[in-house]
Amino acid sequence: MSADRFAHLYSQDALCARPSAIRDICALVARPEVRSLAGGWPDPASFPIEEVTRIFGEMIGECGEEMLQYGSTEGIVKLRQALAERMRGEGVAGADPDAILMTHGSAQGMHLATQVFVDRDDVVMVGLPTYFGGTGAIGSRGGEVAGVPVDQNGMNTEFLGREVNRLKGSGKRVKGVYVIPSFQNPTGVTLSLNRRHHLLQLAEEHDLIIFEDDPYCDLRFEGERLPSLKSLDRDGRVIHLRSLSKIFAPGMRLGWAAGEAGAIRQMAVAKQFADCATNTPAQYVLLEFIRQGLLDRQIKANIDHYRAKRDFMLEHLDRHFPEEVSWNRPEGGFFIFVHLPKGWDAGELLRRAIEKNVVFVVGQAFFVDGSGRNTFRLSYSQASLEDIEAAIVEIGSLIKDELK
Amino acid sequence: MSADRFAHLYSQDALCARPSAIRDICALVARPEVRSLAGGWPDPASFPIEEVTRIFGEMIGECGEEMLQYGSTEGIVKLRQALAERMRGEGVAGADPDAILMTHGSAQGMHLATQVFVDRDDVVMVGLPTYFGGTGAIGSRGGEVAGVPVDQNGMNTEFLGREVNRLKGSGKRVKGVYVIPSFQNPTGVTLSLNRRHHLLQLAEEHDLIIFEDDPYCDLRFEGERLPSLKSLDRDGRVIHLRSLSKIFAPGMRLGWAAGEAGAIRQMAVAKQFADCATNTPAQYVLLEFIRQGLLDRQIKANIDHYRAKRDFMLEHLDRHFPEEVSWNRPEGGFFIFVHLPKGWDAGELLRRAIEKNVVFVVGQAFFVDGSGRNTFRLSYSQASLEDIEAAIVEIGSLIKDELK
Repeated sequence: MSADRFAHLYSQDALCARPSAIRDICALVARPEVRSLAGGWPDPASFPIEEVTRIFGEMIGECGEEMLQYGSTEGIVKLRQALAERMRGEGVAGADPDAILMTHGSAQGMHLATQVFVDRDDVVMVGLPTYFGGTGAIGSRGGEVAGVPVDQNGMNTEFLGREVNRLKGSGKRVKGVYVIPSFQNPTGVTLSLNRRHHLLQLAEEHDLIIFEDDPYCDLRFEGERLPSLKSLDRDGRVIHLRSLSKIFAPGMRLGWAAGEAGAIRQMAVAKQFADCATNTPAQYVLLEFIRQGLLDRQIKANIDHYRAKRDFMLEHLDRHFPEEVSWNRPEGGFFIFVHLPKGWDAGELLRRAIEKNVVFVVGQAFFVDGSGRNTFRLSYSQASLEDIEAAIVEIGSLIKDELK
Repeated sequence: MSADRFAHLYSQDALCARPSAIRDICALVARPEVRSLAGGWPDPASFPIEEVTRIFGEMIGECGEEMLQYGSTEGIVKLRQALAERMRGEGVAGADPDAILMTHGSAQGMHLATQVFVDRDDVVMVGLPTYFGGTGAIGSRGGEVAGVPVDQNGMNTEFLGREVNRLKGSGKRVKGVYVIPSFQNPTGVTLSLNRRHHLLQLAEEHDLIIFEDDPYCDLRFEGERLPSLKSLDRDGRVIHLRSLSKIFAPGMRLGWAAGEAGAIRQMAVAKQFADCATNTPAQYVLLEFIRQGLLDRQIKANIDHYRAKRDFMLEHLDRHFPEEVSWNRPEGGFFIFVHLPKGWDAGELLRRAIEKNVVFVVGQAFFVDGSGRNTFRLSYSQASLEDIEAAIVEIGSLIKDELK
């Protein structure tokens, strides 16, 4: 509960709202002496500054009036056509510009999707652990979340099926599943193909919507790209949420949602009253960036960039972390997830790390059931190589001290 | 109710959501032969294209990495400082950057405010008529709206006081008042100073929040600027919502919310899960636009631009509309509101106007109680002078035919 002056007038949702678990850490990160493996922001060194500058100039010269005017709520038609074409290339056979909605980041896509599909006390299944942006959006609608364990193959769909049955049996209205299928935040794991099929089958069986949050799918460092849930979806149950933040520029706040036409139309109606329309200059610049073939080039460059950083972090984990600690080798994305020995408290480790000016995110922040006490998330996306090395050395040394 | 494929899974709010009343007209407006006085969008001829181009180049050269990176949810500190300074200049003595939230347009400000303050069945008082963006945001939270007549001095606060008493007496939870105090959409009228004071007094008396939606306040053509409700607010009850869309560039989707610090903090928490943060390049460009003194210059230019268009429309209304019809002379903003003789149906007039390739918005769309059948809104903001004249001539002629 809040001690705010007008708390007595707040909505139930506002009274339940909690700021993101990493906001406090963000304040720490701002201090220049702190080496942070906490933030999951992209590396500014990867931004296509030169190309954006050139294209902005070209486009505003060509169509400045359209570029500074309101756009339609759905987004610029040509951009949605270009994105539909890309999706068809990714195996979404029927991708249709009219069933695409431009959003201010995939975060807004998720927010609008919950506005359309989630009522107070409705349940959405989420990974244990999962990104708190997704659970936050569900919570902002008064929805409940129920956890499903995530292992090296992603969300455990066998467990999911049983849990949905159990919840429905107890009278709960289960509406959907929130899943980050590629290089999940925070674990870095990818949902296996078998489980993708199983998840879709469960969605049909239990009449569920799948909120497929897929901001990292383009950043695969190795191995074969798996088909998105959307591309396997024969029943229109997947709301596919994409972001340009990791492959273009996060400050542009661009993402898109693609799904069954009626549901996307409802999301567009919700967007009308949420912020009218998506930033127009950003859309024009992205459209031209795609047209000039720069997005594909940028994705390739980012893959190389982040693969090198992942390799660097893995190398230093191998070198400096003791064998009592385990972690995964993500095939893409931004994150590595670490397990401390059972019974350990990553929060305590963080407190000691902060004293050494090193920060990371405790895993518990990502577990809606409060578990995961002995886990933490490391991100290699934003930190410099120097910071990655120094922070890993420091954390490793703190863990070794504890083992003594 | 919707016939959508997944309508059975939609939230209550989605089932109640209605697209904006002018969306259908927008489709018509896209046809080149149509002369439209419907849209309330700014005139692209007023956009500061050259300055934005130059400043974008300067800023991205200076701080490209920051400019393309995520910003904080609250918005860029220096921009909030600059806006707080402007607000102090407008008489908001305590304007504080920490109690300002950057938003994607004032529409998002209203949406976040309703997320914080409106629960299902809560009542918010609105003008009869009022802008449907505001009522749409309230509706998206399951809130109810109750109408208060608007006359030439704005919302009738005597009526408001009685109506709040009546609603509270009937067990309703009245949470706030949504008001557009300057050159209101759709009527163009301004809330008088006496009524501003009275409204604040009523808010204290009845423990209400005032949602002050003030996108047009800077566009005053004549007469003295009235103090904003925020500047008169001694009790922190006003959530002041501002837009850059009418004085800078609507495509940039920039606005801000200012209010009591706790409430703004709650809105920032809501924004975190709504879209994370506001577009960063847009914020940097606006900041520099303000710093270089261009925003004040732009406001002056826009005042001259729209005043001339208003005068032109008024002149042609005088010339071509019969005396049985009445309209107001707005002192600013984008809109003129027309009353047809009692018993007339502006919808019927619109149907005949469309046959002549002329469109406007029927007033009824702005009345939450379904009244206002004999009214319509004319906008001079976007139309060319040629279109304004031709459309007024046509509508006037249709009205005269009807009078025969």
